[in-house]
Amino acid sequence: MPRFKPSESLCSVVRSLDLLGDRWTLLLIREVVFGTRRFDDFAAHLGIARNVLSTRLAKLVEAGVLMQEPLQAEGRRQGYRLTEMGEDLLPVLMSLMQWGDRWLQTPETIPIRIVERATGKPLPALRVRNAAGQVLALADLDWEPGPGAGNPLMAPLVAAYEAQRRTGPRPVPEAVDEDTPTPVRRKKAVKL
Amino acid sequence: MPRFKPSESLCSVVRSLDLLGDRWTLLLIREVVFGTRRFDDFAAHLGIARNVLSTRLAKLVEAGVLMQEPLQAEGRRQGYRLTEMGEDLLPVLMSLMQWGDRWLQTPETIPIRIVERATGKPLPALRVRNAAGQVLALADLDWEPGPGAGNPLMAPLVAAYEAQRRTGPRPVPEAVDEDTPTPVRRKKAVKL
Repeated sequence: MPRFKPSESLCSVVRSLDLLGDRWTLLLIREVVFGTRRFDDFAAHLGIARNVLSTRLAKLVEAGVLMQEPLQAEGRRQGYRLTEMGEDLLPVLMSLMQWGDRWLQTPETIPIRIVERATGKPLPALRVRNAAGQVLALADLDWEPGPGAGNPLMAPLVAAYEAQRRTGPRPVPEAVDEDTPTPVRRKKAVKL
Repeated sequence: MPRFKPSESLCSVVRSLDLLGDRWTLLLIREVVFGTRRFDDFAAHLGIARNVLSTRLAKLVEAGVLMQEPLQAEGRRQGYRLTEMGEDLLPVLMSLMQWGDRWLQTPETIPIRIVERATGKPLPALRVRNAAGQVLALADLDWEPGPGAGNPLMAPLVAAYEAQRRTGPRPVPEAVDEDTPTPVRRKKAVKL
């Protein structure tokens, strides 16, 4: 059995989770998306201890996800906003929120809906699609080694995945779903 | 200042993170997506202690994200697969992976690329879009109270967001981006 060192992994999921896997971090992003700017407001809305909040905000500024800027009409007081890197987390936050809406709420309990500003209409569910816009299910996906696959930190994991692909027979992919609006529910799980 | 009880929040982001906010959970989903089925393989690939792994898998089965099924050609040994609810996490996992590819890797370090099985082509970046398929930036989004907004656990937070919307002047939304392929990079962060 090869030795894996996940803590030093080059996997993009691991790297993203190293930064975002902390529960507070994505909630801070949520807050900024809903217009929160001030330290005191983050603390109140999230019920987070001020020292923990201070550490998390500093981490996100250092990572380039948040930036500080003067609050309008408040002189030198600083607030927080998303950088380009931070705003690019919008699909992560939205897909997480939509998944919660679909699977962890009833229609009566959903507290907030994101809508398009220009039309007031709710957003369709984010779906994995091909370049032609067709919705893809898990069975429609495959993977290939990237340029970093040979790195000693990744090679054992890539080899293990390759072995699983060879030994685990996969069913023929089912027909691609029609592009249906949310909620998205298929009859049963599809094997990879 | 109203009192917030985030630990009992009805927010879909909070609810999703209560289930997924643990670093291991999304890595377990990643493993299943890449074909891992056996307890021993999860443990080896993730370098996770067996007692922690056992707890996390049981939690995900109980929540309905994973299910057990007999491994083919191995008699009574059980493996794990995604349920419909679990497969519906694909947009979360893919957007997290794509964000890591864009912001935490260089083109030379990306170890694995997800492709469409039928064509072998890489997938375009997941983007937040309106019903017409146009890409939306943060400045193009707004929110409205849902049916659960009046719940005592949510009402203070919804009121705080509403106050922020009134006091924080928003710029006129910029023109919607052209639908560009990955990588997606705008010049600077856009204020909400």
